Amino acid sequence: MNRLTPLLQQLIDALRILPGVGPKSAQRMAFALLERNREGGLQLGAALQAAMTKVGHCQQCRTFCETELCAICAEPARRADGLLCIVGTAADQLAIEQTGQFNGRYFVLQGYLSPLDGIGPQDLGLDLLANQLGAGDINEVILATNPTVEGDATAFYIAELCHKQQIKVSRIAQGIPVGGELEFVDGTTLSHAFSGRKAF
Amino acid sequence: MNRLTPLLQQLIDALRILPGVGPKSAQRMAFALLERNREGGLQLGAALQAAMTKVGHCQQCRTFCETELCAICAEPARRADGLLCIVGTAADQLAIEQTGQFNGRYFVLQGYLSPLDGIGPQDLGLDLLANQLGAGDINEVILATNPTVEGDATAFYIAELCHKQQIKVSRIAQGIPVGGELEFVDGTTLSHAFSGRKAF
Ligand SMILES: [Zn+2]
Ligand SMILES: [Zn+2]
Repeated sequence: MNRLTPLLQQLIDALRILPGVGPKSAQRMAFALLERNREGGLQLGAALQAAMTKVGHCQQCRTFCETELCAICAEPARRADGLLCIVGTAADQLAIEQTGQFNGRYFVLQGYLSPLDGIGPQDLGLDLLANQLGAGDINEVILATNPTVEGDATAFYIAELCHKQQIKVSRIAQGIPVGGELEFVDGTTLSHAFSGRKAF
Repeated sequence: MNRLTPLLQQLIDALRILPGVGPKSAQRMAFALLERNREGGLQLGAALQAAMTKVGHCQQCRTFCETELCAICAEPARRADGLLCIVGTAADQLAIEQTGQFNGRYFVLQGYLSPLDGIGPQDLGLDLLANQLGAGDINEVILATNPTVEGDATAFYIAELCHKQQIKVSRIAQGIPVGGELEFVDGTTLSHAFSGRKAF
């Protein structure tokens, strides 16, 4: 018999929308907040409310931001070398940014082309991207899309846009992960690693 | 360089108060909500707000509830056999309730005696429990506290209260978990299992 009160049950149900949170951990989270950290629970409630309603997209690169332009797009130095890196998600952008190796600008697709799911070029802002490619200040586009069917299709589509504008376009290397062991790498990755081999 | 906007960073920080949520999963949760489920994020925000402010404690058994008495305490049938089960947390109560084997009432300590952390009898509502033991309708107290130093100390304390009122008191069995393998059970559990052996 389920003896949880309605508000507690609603909280547990609501926590399960978080990725990776099953019924047991949702219950543990709800009890932990009620027992030890109601103040933190209220802060999380307010942070969710604020972020869900106020975080939008950068008008230029489409990453998450609550102002018209994100910090990267607003910084003139990031335009200097004319590099534009295309990523699928804001999390991918963050991962690249954290390497500290890239100083150009980004375009965040917020997804990939997927006709079966009804996701077309407009949903990824590819019309916006085409305009930017036509503006003349981009020298090279680096495709950092996922090595998946959707990521590949999206990369080909964007490469076409670049060719039309005669802009150099490259894709980040696919191969053996650094520190990975050859025997555990799947065949497709291994064949990409071979075809992408470099003089030593 | 951290390029996250303030509202996004605040959301990620706030998500980290949830047990088991580290920086990476907090980030994944925040992006997932913003990308795919803002409605769910708002519902979670509202559920947190409601639960943190409105869920209190049952006036009789101290479990979480938003009314004066919880559903179990309000049900006359649960008083019939005069059994009272003492648990440390609402999660423990739920685990016992889900076995479907216990039909008495509970008392939820919401913690254990811990002088070093400044947790004394009053913090666990043991004065409230003493009053209930004196009311004459409890025939047996079943101690289902954790098999830890704090759980043991709390069990001894409550057993004393029961002895004063000449109420029968028992403690749930400690031993080999069902389905567990002997070789992986720790020595203390094993010695409890021996001393608690039963005729076969
Ligand atoms: Zn931007
Ligand atoms: Zn109750």
